[in-house]
Amino acid sequence: MTVPAQTTARLTGVVPPLVTPLTPEYDVDTASLARLIQYQLAGGVDGVFVLGTSGEGTFLTDEQRQVVLETTVAEVAGQVPVLAGVIDTSTGRVAAHVSAALKAGVDALVATAPFYAATHPAEIERHFVRLKSLAGDTAIYAYDIPSRVGTKLSASLVLSLGEQGVIAGVKDSSGQETSLRQLVISRRELGMRDFAVMTGSEVTVDSSLAFGVDGVVPGLGNVDPAGYVRLFKTAVAGDAAAARAEQDRLFRLFEIIEVADRSRMGASSSALGAFKAGLYVLGVIDCPVTAYPCIPLSDTEIDAIRPLLDRAGLH
Amino acid sequence: MTVPAQTTARLTGVVPPLVTPLTPEYDVDTASLARLIQYQLAGGVDGVFVLGTSGEGTFLTDEQRQVVLETTVAEVAGQVPVLAGVIDTSTGRVAAHVSAALKAGVDALVATAPFYAATHPAEIERHFVRLKSLAGDTAIYAYDIPSRVGTKLSASLVLSLGEQGVIAGVKDSSGQETSLRQLVISRRELGMRDFAVMTGSEVTVDSSLAFGVDGVVPGLGNVDPAGYVRLFKTAVAGDAAAARAEQDRLFRLFEIIEVADRSRMGASSSALGAFKAGLYVLGVIDCPVTAYPCIPLSDTEIDAIRPLLDRAGLH
Amino acid sequence: MTVPAQTTARLTGVVPPLVTPLTPEYDVDTASLARLIQYQLAGGVDGVFVLGTSGEGTFLTDEQRQVVLETTVAEVAGQVPVLAGVIDTSTGRVAAHVSAALKAGVDALVATAPFYAATHPAEIERHFVRLKSLAGDTAIYAYDIPSRVGTKLSASLVLSLGEQGVIAGVKDSSGQETSLRQLVISRRELGMRDFAVMTGSEVTVDSSLAFGVDGVVPGLGNVDPAGYVRLFKTAVAGDAAAARAEQDRLFRLFEIIEVADRSRMGASSSALGAFKAGLYVLGVIDCPVTAYPCIPLSDTEIDAIRPLLDRAGLH
Amino acid sequence: MTVPAQTTARLTGVVPPLVTPLTPEYDVDTASLARLIQYQLAGGVDGVFVLGTSGEGTFLTDEQRQVVLETTVAEVAGQVPVLAGVIDTSTGRVAAHVSAALKAGVDALVATAPFYAATHPAEIERHFVRLKSLAGDTAIYAYDIPSRVGTKLSASLVLSLGEQGVIAGVKDSSGQETSLRQLVISRRELGMRDFAVMTGSEVTVDSSLAFGVDGVVPGLGNVDPAGYVRLFKTAVAGDAAAARAEQDRLFRLFEIIEVADRSRMGASSSALGAFKAGLYVLGVIDCPVTAYPCIPLSDTEIDAIRPLLDRAGLH
Repeated sequence: MTVPAQTTARLTGVVPPLVTPLTPEYDVDTASLARLIQYQLAGGVDGVFVLGTSGEGTFLTDEQRQVVLETTVAEVAGQVPVLAGVIDTSTGRVAAHVSAALKAGVDALVATAPFYAATHPAEIERHFVRLKSLAGDTAIYAYDIPSRVGTKLSASLVLSLGEQGVIAGVKDSSGQETSLRQLVISRRELGMRDFAVMTGSEVTVDSSLAFGVDGVVPGLGNVDPAGYVRLFKTAVAGDAAAARAEQDRLFRLFEIIEVADRSRMGASSSALGAFKAGLYVLGVIDCPVTAYPCIPLSDTEIDAIRPLLDRAGLH
Repeated sequence: MTVPAQTTARLTGVVPPLVTPLTPEYDVDTASLARLIQYQLAGGVDGVFVLGTSGEGTFLTDEQRQVVLETTVAEVAGQVPVLAGVIDTSTGRVAAHVSAALKAGVDALVATAPFYAATHPAEIERHFVRLKSLAGDTAIYAYDIPSRVGTKLSASLVLSLGEQGVIAGVKDSSGQETSLRQLVISRRELGMRDFAVMTGSEVTVDSSLAFGVDGVVPGLGNVDPAGYVRLFKTAVAGDAAAARAEQDRLFRLFEIIEVADRSRMGASSSALGAFKAGLYVLGVIDCPVTAYPCIPLSDTEIDAIRPLLDRAGLH
Repeated sequence: MTVPAQTTARLTGVVPPLVTPLTPEYDVDTASLARLIQYQLAGGVDGVFVLGTSGEGTFLTDEQRQVVLETTVAEVAGQVPVLAGVIDTSTGRVAAHVSAALKAGVDALVATAPFYAATHPAEIERHFVRLKSLAGDTAIYAYDIPSRVGTKLSASLVLSLGEQGVIAGVKDSSGQETSLRQLVISRRELGMRDFAVMTGSEVTVDSSLAFGVDGVVPGLGNVDPAGYVRLFKTAVAGDAAAARAEQDRLFRLFEIIEVADRSRMGASSSALGAFKAGLYVLGVIDCPVTAYPCIPLSDTEIDAIRPLLDRAGLH
Repeated sequence: MTVPAQTTARLTGVVPPLVTPLTPEYDVDTASLARLIQYQLAGGVDGVFVLGTSGEGTFLTDEQRQVVLETTVAEVAGQVPVLAGVIDTSTGRVAAHVSAALKAGVDALVATAPFYAATHPAEIERHFVRLKSLAGDTAIYAYDIPSRVGTKLSASLVLSLGEQGVIAGVKDSSGQETSLRQLVISRRELGMRDFAVMTGSEVTVDSSLAFGVDGVVPGLGNVDPAGYVRLFKTAVAGDAAAARAEQDRLFRLFEIIEVADRSRMGASSSALGAFKAGLYVLGVIDCPVTAYPCIPLSDTEIDAIRPLLDRAGLH
């Protein structure tokens, strides 16, 4: 199997994982998606990531995924890179999504380890190697989200895949700062200049950037892309106080995910529902519904998000 | 939404979750699958369940799933019911599998709760209700396998879905005997005569049948269907000693799943690899490989399974 | 280190883990404890187990533990064996409890693996070997309760300790029927005649006895010792239907642990609080309070337990 | 119950959780403990914490704990505050440790939630309130270590206890940066000036200090107290680059905990064994053994730690 050399430059900055706006009938709302993309570009983001966890990729049918990919590629029109989630249970099923995403013209792919069945690191390695053989020159990022996948990608596996040129980086949503720091230190020691380490945490971005992480993939960036861009720029400029203040503001804004009543809906519904509700209140998308069978936020809950946006200076 | 009344008679007996024989190139080996089905029918099974966890359904592409469904329906030719797994991450994606399975002519469907995203019981209920509206008169069984799905289906949810006519029963692979017993006792008290409770455990079948479970869906039944049929018949006939002796023999046979070296492959690979290796050694299937990216058993490991089959009287 | 040969005959039957009755000031209520013991003896139990999980042993000070031991030994007066929990975080701390229990004249000891710190099976083995060297001829039972200790005692470790004469048996509160069955089958194959396997589950006793377990240590036996004795006797006599009916009745009685509002107290408080409330309602003990800092059941919750006792025929 | 007002000034800086040096016979080695304390004071630490997790407090008998307390108080002689762990399963048992620690003359107490039994936040609150009523003016710090205790102390509970004057701060060993940041932000908003937030993580100290944490309780500080003091001072002085470099050096030094063979000992044994082996190699303590029943590091493993100390500049 020939694995092509990695040619993509290192990913950096703010790359929000876009939610997928839906109609009340649970179809993809392409007009709202287009507005969301313009809202992100206006906010100054460095890329967009569709069909990730925030994008409810695993909830969408193949046809719906295709609509999201095509709408996004067309709307972004090459202004920033488009990353596409190809998240599914096994290599064979992910391979089908890889083909579809390549055909749609995305710039990079984001894949988790296989899930449902429990896999061994050696099997996860085989998984990514096979995907890379299908993706050719298109970069693949490993997506480490053990809360969903049930497996933590170890630093040693991620670094090994990076050294082999199989993956161009990692999106770390493990919430384990130690492991994230291990990646950054080892990358430097190994001289892996083109290997990107991105955090998926909304609330530790200033710290992570300070110790060497390249950027952030924040779900909350759907609602406040400009805030994350300011946070990134101040941190990179070395203004730790300004970065911390921006992070603290966003920390408080993140409380929107606690508004919904968790005794009647899942964690995914309440968090993504809050992002969508925020975008709905801000007039970016037309309908705040999450994918079926998720329970939507009530009108009262949506109203309760409004003052939290106000407090954060979003109107 | 109209949910049709449940018309299927209660499922009972031995319904092995068939492995999916593959070629060395990871294609579905239809000739081996046909032989496996004949081996099962000769063993006296009461039904077959394809595309479940043992069937590596989540590893197969849509096209491969279709091949399995069509081959099975044709080969079984109505002699026993064919149950088809429709296991996927969300309602929308499962719905596509439901359509395909109905078109192939299966007799019943088996679905888990959504996974990857964390869902609430109220959302799981919506999931099954929607699936039933698509399945019409075809029975749906809930598949409770928290080790894979991340969520335990509570007895109250399962019973409520049964009372509503949404599901025709449950396959319990939770390993929690208390919850299984709760189902049986409550079913009796609620007068739910047509509601099937099947255990997915290979090693507690005599006990479970003794307290009122209807049957078993044993992965090990791939290798020894006749043994499970004897176990079921002796238990139902009230010969507890004979049932226990048969169960103890199968308990020991189940040790084949511990032969493979777990430091180099996943739990799924070693267990399913052992079932396939057993069938390969017995001459039922042509190749013992598990689905990509699973690591296969080595020749030495396959050889080590042979004496365990011998000890159990399988040749 | 010399490990004395095991001389105790195999433990069998019903050995309830006694709750520790407390006064409203959280002192040990010796009069209530004496009445509880007489209630158990009148019910026909085969032994009593004090200072276990149900006995809130880890909540009591050394002085309080001593009062429980001395009261129990005096009240039982040799009519049945007295087993004493010696549950603590490490070998050294357990050793102190062993000395105290031996001095009080108990008949056997019950110890878990060390906890708080994570230990390896080889370290757990050292733990039990050291305890046995201190206990001399007094039997030690291993107590497998991973929900509290954080570690499952593997069948191979338990059997090895049994073969070495270090432990006289195991109380299995793991809830894993497969592992329990493994113990019974392996014990038979290894010819370990004097090694006792007891289940700690309230609700699978008939099944467990049917496949070869020796007896039960049921928390619910505090409330209905005679019921568990009937269950044991009918099961041993081979009357599976009578045993199942008794088990089903006790299954329903066990619903008393779900009466308390779990949103305002812990799982331990609600379960032990229910056992104590049941004994209080039945007039056996004077005060239903659980150990500090546990939240007690409210009067309304205690009243709600009364009809469940009535339904089970307890007055 | 009267809870006295908190009078202790806010804890800050580097407060290593001292290991407890033992003799080959598992007695407390007071001479080595005295040398360890002098090594810490020479390194410039701001306090010492004995009988914590690193101090193997839960492994020691009451008598051994007392020896540690008295030796430490005498050796420190008021130069820095002495914090004492009072870690045990329940309020009553912790209360006994509180009395002993107060009698020995420690400056502050460190307590976890109850463990073994599962407790509710309302019960944990009762636990700390009772302890404070016993401790009088002596400060109590809550110790949040869910990996050992099985319960995470929520930010809201910790802050509420702080506002009530029950606790003077928290040592956070949860590894959850989000929750740590929540504490710091909320403390500022609530104006809780005297409330200390300390991290227990060895490897994220620069980040944590940058976002407002007061100090660190690093197990690795046993081996390199001066390094952590440099890290703290540079961070507080605003020299982020120097702090990061020091943190990165300590990150690499922390690899000593991975030297021991985890297939033959527990995680606690390998980590604490490495700290003790480091101190042994450096000539600070006489014997590297961990508490019984922990498996000690082999001579080969101890030798393998030497070059890692060298690399970090420790001789």
